[in-house]
Amino acid sequence: MSTTKKMVVEWKGNLRLEAKNEKGLTVKFDAPKDHGGEETALSPMENVLASLASCSSFHVLTILKKKRLNVTDYSVEATAERREDPPRVFTKIHLKYIVKGTNVTSEAVESAIKLSEEKYCSVGGMLKQAVPITSSFEVVKQG
Amino acid sequence: MSTTKKMVVEWKGNLRLEAKNEKGLTVKFDAPKDHGGEETALSPMENVLASLASCSSFHVLTILKKKRLNVTDYSVEATAERREDPPRVFTKIHLKYIVKGTNVTSEAVESAIKLSEEKYCSVGGMLKQAVPITSSFEVVKQG
Repeated sequence: MSTTKKMVVEWKGNLRLEAKNEKGLTVKFDAPKDHGGEETALSPMENVLASLASCSSFHVLTILKKKRLNVTDYSVEATAERREDPPRVFTKIHLKYIVKGTNVTSEAVESAIKLSEEKYCSVGGMLKQAVPITSSFEVVKQG
Repeated sequence: MSTTKKMVVEWKGNLRLEAKNEKGLTVKFDAPKDHGGEETALSPMENVLASLASCSSFHVLTILKKKRLNVTDYSVEATAERREDPPRVFTKIHLKYIVKGTNVTSEAVESAIKLSEEKYCSVGGMLKQAVPITSSFEVVKQG
């Protein structure tokens, strides 16, 4: 079983591009100035790193919610090393999850991250075939 | 040799997230309604597909410009099949490049796409480890 996903990417001049999905939602891309762009938007590689952290976060947040844990603040610091020579792929990626909440435990966060990274996150499911991905987390109790 | 890339992803409530690079450029993410989101922005997987097409386009457009070919319009239709079961990875991806211009030849476009996909595109350099990626193109002469 599979579903089909379609996007159209349109050139907007120089290295500016805009991608649109079937519902009309869009995202813009540009290149860094030292690669001929104008830096009006994130680069494709920055977008991929952000997509990985966001994909994993969707599942972490959903799992924590299902466990009735009250997350009050949440962020991920994503760091990646990149090859200098083409193709300038990521050579390693680290995700640091920072979860704040009133009744959030380290055990619950660790287990949610593990489930997300090992089973649910689709972006990670692809990227980890090409790049080693590691993670760490910090839990801050509030209230 | 390698360079480091950092992004911070912040939770904005429900399944809305915003990623920011070190220069303050941002991209938003949301989940589809049938996955608990509000569809205010593209999903991470849509963003990855758009990033692949955009990354490859940067190199195709740059190569055609270096060859002094006058591209007047350019777009890519990206189509991907996705697994139904988690992790819901892409199982195949197709990119269809549509290039319009006054002096653009099929040979030049074909060679630019080949160079981009085989050598330069970093997003493709990672994704092709996990997913078969195919491409086709259409050249429209104008003027």
